[in-house]
Formats: sequence, structure tokens, C-alpha cells
Amino acid sequence: MISLKTNFMDYFSSNFKLGILGGGQLGKMLLNDTRKFDIYTCVMDASKEAPCNIACNEFHLGDLMDYDAVYKFGKQVDVLTIEIENVNVAALEDLEKEGIKVFPSSKTLRAIQNKATQKLFYIDHNLPTAPFSRFAYTSEIKEAINHGGLNLPFVWKSAQFGYDGQGVKIVKSMEDLQGLPNVECITETLVPFKNELAVIVARNVSGETKAYPVVEMEFHPEANQVEYVICPARIPDEVAKKAKDIALKVSAAYNHVGLLAVEMFQTKEDDILINEVAPRPHNSGHHTIESSYTSQFEQHLRAILNLPLGRTDSKVGGIMVNLVGAEGFTGNVVYQNIEAIMHMDGVTPHIYGKKQTRPFRKMGHVTIVNEDLNKARRIAEEVKNTIKVIAK
Amino acid sequence: MISLKTNFMDYFSSNFKLGILGGGQLGKMLLNDTRKFDIYTCVMDASKEAPCNIACNEFHLGDLMDYDAVYKFGKQVDVLTIEIENVNVAALEDLEKEGIKVFPSSKTLRAIQNKATQKLFYIDHNLPTAPFSRFAYTSEIKEAINHGGLNLPFVWKSAQFGYDGQGVKIVKSMEDLQGLPNVECITETLVPFKNELAVIVARNVSGETKAYPVVEMEFHPEANQVEYVICPARIPDEVAKKAKDIALKVSAAYNHVGLLAVEMFQTKEDDILINEVAPRPHNSGHHTIESSYTSQFEQHLRAILNLPLGRTDSKVGGIMVNLVGAEGFTGNVVYQNIEAIMHMDGVTPHIYGKKQTRPFRKMGHVTIVNEDLNKARRIAEEVKNTIKVIAK
Repeated sequence: MISLKTNFMDYFSSNFKLGILGGGQLGKMLLNDTRKFDIYTCVMDASKEAPCNIACNEFHLGDLMDYDAVYKFGKQVDVLTIEIENVNVAALEDLEKEGIKVFPSSKTLRAIQNKATQKLFYIDHNLPTAPFSRFAYTSEIKEAINHGGLNLPFVWKSAQFGYDGQGVKIVKSMEDLQGLPNVECITETLVPFKNELAVIVARNVSGETKAYPVVEMEFHPEANQVEYVICPARIPDEVAKKAKDIALKVSAAYNHVGLLAVEMFQTKEDDILINEVAPRPHNSGHHTIESSYTSQFEQHLRAILNLPLGRTDSKVGGIMVNLVGAEGFTGNVVYQNIEAIMHMDGVTPHIYGKKQTRPFRKMGHVTIVNEDLNKARRIAEEVKNTIKVIAK
Repeated sequence: MISLKTNFMDYFSSNFKLGILGGGQLGKMLLNDTRKFDIYTCVMDASKEAPCNIACNEFHLGDLMDYDAVYKFGKQVDVLTIEIENVNVAALEDLEKEGIKVFPSSKTLRAIQNKATQKLFYIDHNLPTAPFSRFAYTSEIKEAINHGGLNLPFVWKSAQFGYDGQGVKIVKSMEDLQGLPNVECITETLVPFKNELAVIVARNVSGETKAYPVVEMEFHPEANQVEYVICPARIPDEVAKKAKDIALKVSAAYNHVGLLAVEMFQTKEDDILINEVAPRPHNSGHHTIESSYTSQFEQHLRAILNLPLGRTDSKVGGIMVNLVGAEGFTGNVVYQNIEAIMHMDGVTPHIYGKKQTRPFRKMGHVTIVNEDLNKARRIAEEVKNTIKVIAK
């Protein structure tokens, strides 16, 4: 039996403190909702320039991978959560032993942090995922190909510290292996898919569980880069049901507390394969701020504070466009034509507050909401073609 | 020609500073949206405990009615706005002369701050309002009654510093005059009305104007206290149109920049009479955070920064319930049964972060959204009957 504070009131009428590891944009958006509920917050991040530095009650400087820093920070709070997976899990384990509530738990985090462990977890729990092989070092891959144990093409993934598409490469020839870091990694069979889908599942301490509608990541036809997150996904109901059911199974298997974003592939045969998960608010849920009855950030708070979960259905259709640094620009950020997109119907820019841009850095996102999803999609394209993140 | 920054980018790529006079709940909710747009903010308030003290970039301690404090604060910012009308207007005037952009302007604020001046403004501009008399001192009222120049009953209103129903009294007999402060005041004919309505009008620096849907303030049948703000108002379309048109006329007459909340009476004959206005985000617009395409706070920012205004229509029906301190309780606040209301459909509590409650103090509000307004109204009643703001 978890001895969490027994009711909401305790979160702000006593000396309750919520700790957040990581001070980036996810933490920043989470803080908005802590303000709404007047919850006392402490944030730790390695950079003073972190977007979370304002809007939290206490900001602590510290390296998220450093045992001592995480342990010392965690000892000062009642509930500890993360906005990034790459944190020192050993410190979390010790904090748990000493009574700090850590959500997601060190166990969940450990099972997810390493992509090889994550894939084995799916196999162990009979959850559908693409076939894969595990390697202690990238250098072993060549040998496996030469001996016929592995066939080209495949997807190479670094087992650890991958984030936002970093640490992932499609390998079509031996040459593609060159330049990859020689680290623990997996290779995954390249499954041709129709759609990349995602479902965010919320689970509170008592086990109450709710899933958000299935979203679709629409890719640029040439650049192979996610351009739009579209809610709801434009897929048949039975496929959406299948994806949601699998996401709920993954959630149950992990027994996580908080949010779990489950990214999946819809194959040509309409099978669903799990790609990967993130145990926190996620890029695929940013549209919920404007389009859902409960934003993913409020929901994460409700879940980790063991409050009743909010409605996960949508008020209106929502589309999210990431604002990433344009290629060829590094330096003081300028959001070219941002005023022009604010003229458009139902468009809200979210600027994360990072002062420096560099190619592909996530600098913000734009949400487009409309009662008519097709109209929202057209406006989203206009947004994409208008705004550009450059440097001056 | 106003030499405002020419585009949105300047608001965060240069040294732009937005100043907010007042650090209460309205400022706090406004700050959420400055974070979204990454706008640098400075807040001044007389209390260190003000809800705005976190989430702004700079917090300045100072008395809002003090010329020097307001002037000195204003000199440090590029655009200055308010979250409460009771500020030193002479300082604003001088700041305007020195090139600081002040929205609402000192002129608008001066015309609104004093209720007698406000009423005269409506008469001058041929805008409908209840008949009234003006008195330099409350003590002069008795004489006017005795000489037959004024008839009982009437509404007494302090000309200055009224706020949230403070400084207003219904006078039915000579005895009711006892205990009223001997200040500049007005008396208004008591007009029997069907509904109290409000419309928030947004106007940016360039003059772009948009009105939100008409809302209805539903009163408790016995306590004569606003219980629910309901959007949209449950009134015939032609009455709603009339109310909106009058609100737009008031907005045009004031030539204000930012938001203007226009409170009105719908008489038994379906005439619309202007009650009073507030040139800032307003209690009658809190539901917009959840129910509208653009929250009133984001809209206020768009208006004063001369950005394009956002959509003012609703995604879903919205109802707002104020959380005020219960009678008989003073001290450290406790939100009794807040967890119970979070179990209800589409319910979001907003806790302002004031540590001390006292009878009728505004401590927070609750928004109820639903695609079916009648269902929202039933849930709102459940909320009202469940949560209680007490002290421990």
C-alpha cells in the first residue's frame, strides 16, 4: 500500500514538494499546470538557461546523470518525476528505498532506458514488435552480416541515450555502418509501414487508467521526417482500436505511474508493432493542450499525485507542427514569419524559450485546432510553409 | 503613429520587457501565456506573497497607488499593462509622455476608474445605462431624498476603488445609508432585470476588434450573489446580438487597447443597460481558458503587443464557478472536497495560490466544460455543492 498524501489538499496546504528532473520544454509545460493547482515545485537541470528556470519555486543546478546530484535533489522532495529519461537510475532506486515516491519508478525507467532491454520486455510479455538483434558493440554487426546472421537493410539504434531521433540510422549498405558510434546497440528489421501511430496512456498510483485517442505522425514524403502529429489519426476504427488495446497492454505490463507514450507502426497488413515508449509527457501529446479536455501535462500531474484522471477525449481536432532549427542556421534564434501564422485560424505557437538555435534543435511547436480536421490539416501545411526557425 | 515593436520576434529576440501592474490571480493567469510566447515579464505588487511572484522574470515590490513606485517601475519596461484598475494614473500619464506604451491608456483608465465619470461617459456617448445621480459625499444623499430629488430604493456605489462587488449596496430605506463610507459616490435607479450579461471585447493597437460570445451570470435565487458564469448565455439570439453590439460600441467609444469586459443588464423588456466595464482580463472570461479557441489572457497579450487577435468562438460550452472563502473561516486555506470535484466530468480547478482565506475572498475558480451546456450546468451545481473553501 503506497502511503502517498491522502488527498489533494495536502499538496499545497502542507510542505509538499514536487521534484522534476530536467528543465526543458516538457518540464516548462508541466510547470504551467503545477501553477494552476498551486503545487510547490523544485526543478533540477544542468543548465541555468533551462526553460524551467522561471515558473518553478526552486531551481537546482545539477547533472541528471550524476548519482550524488540526483540523490541530494531527490531527498528534498516528496514526489519525484522526470521530463527526460536520461537520469541516474541508481539514485532513484536509493531514493525509493528511503521513502521518496518516484514516478515513473526506477524499475520502469530501467526497463525503458535501454532499448535492448525494452525490446526484450516486449518479447517477454508477448507484445508485438519488429524482430531485432542485440549487440554489445556496433563493431560486432559487420561480423554478423558476414556470417549471414543479419541481413541488410535494417535499422540501427543505440541502446542508450537516444533521444528525438538521435541514435537511430537506417543501414542499407556496409558503408552506412561507417561513422556510427561503437556502443551497445540493436538492429531492427526494417518493416514497411503505412503509418506511424502513437497512444498516450495515463495511469495513476491507484491504477486508474485512461488512453488518449490514437494520433498519427505524418511524414514528409521525401525527407522521412515527422511533419505533423494529427489527432485523431485518419485510420479505420478497427485499426485505432487495435493500436489503443496494444498501448493499454504495454501500460499494464510496465505497471507505470504517470504517462506512457507508446509509439507504434501500422504495417501494410494493418498489424500494429510497438516501436518504442517514453514514460513521460511526449511530443505526440502536445496538441492536447488545446484540443483535449485534459492536457497531457495536467494528466501527468493527476496521475503521479494520485488524483482522479481527467477526460482524454478531444474538444476539437488538433494538429501539431514541431518548430525545429532550420539547416544552416546556428546562433540567436529568430522565428521568421511567426506573426503571419498568428493570423491563421486556430493557430497557437508555443515558444520554448531557448535562446540559441541549431539545425534540428526543437525550439517550439505550433498547434492548429479546428472542428474540421481536414481544414486544420490545410492550415497546418500553411503554417509549415510560412514559419522558419533561423538565426540572426 | 504608434512606434511599437514592428513584429512579434522583437518581443523575445531583443531586450523587450512587458510590465504588469498587479500580481494577483489575473496577472498569474496572464503569465502562463507570456511563458507560452516566451515574453520577458516584470511584475509589480505591494505584497511578496502575490501569486505572480513566481513565473515572472522580475518581481518588484511596490505600492500600485504610489506615483514614484509606478513611475520607476514603468520606466524599465517597453509595454505596461494592468491586472487591476486601482493604480496611479498620473504616473501612467507621465510614462506615456516619455514613450512607454501603456495599455489600457491612462485616458481610458481615468475614464473608467471613477464610476461617476464612467456613467457620464455613457451619457455623453449615447450608450444605454441606468439613470443615476452623482454625489461628492454620501452624506449629501439624505438631503436629496428629503428634498424629493432622489427616490428609494436605489443602488449606492462608491465612485472609486470598488472591486468585486465591494463598494456597492442596495439602499431600500434611510437606515441602509448608515455605515456607508462618506465618499464620492453615485446612486443608480434600481432596474429590475432578467439577466446580468457580459461581453469581453478585444482590440489591438492597430484597431482590430473581436468580441467573445455573450455570457450570463446566474444568480443564487436567495443570496443575490453570482453563482455561475455561463457561456454562451441562455438568451434569445436577438438579445445576444443586441448585447454584443452595445459592447462593441462601448469598446469603440473608449478606443481602448487590450480587453474590455462590459457588464450589462437585460431588463424585463429585453433592453440592454450597461452596468460597468473593466479594461483588463475579467472574471467573466475565465472559462475561455478551457472553452474558447483563444483564452482571454492570450487575447489580452495579442492585443497589447499588436499581434493578430485569435478566434473568440467556443470549442465547447463552458461554466465558471468562483471559489470564494466561506463565511466563518479565516486562516490557512483548505479546499475541502477538491478531490471529489476532480472526479467529475470536464472539471478543472484553478487555485490562485493565496495562503490565507477570509470570507468572500476570491481563492480560485473551477471551470466545467462540456459539449452539452445543460450537462455542464448540472455538473457545475454538483461542484458548487461539493467544494468548500475553509480554514484549518
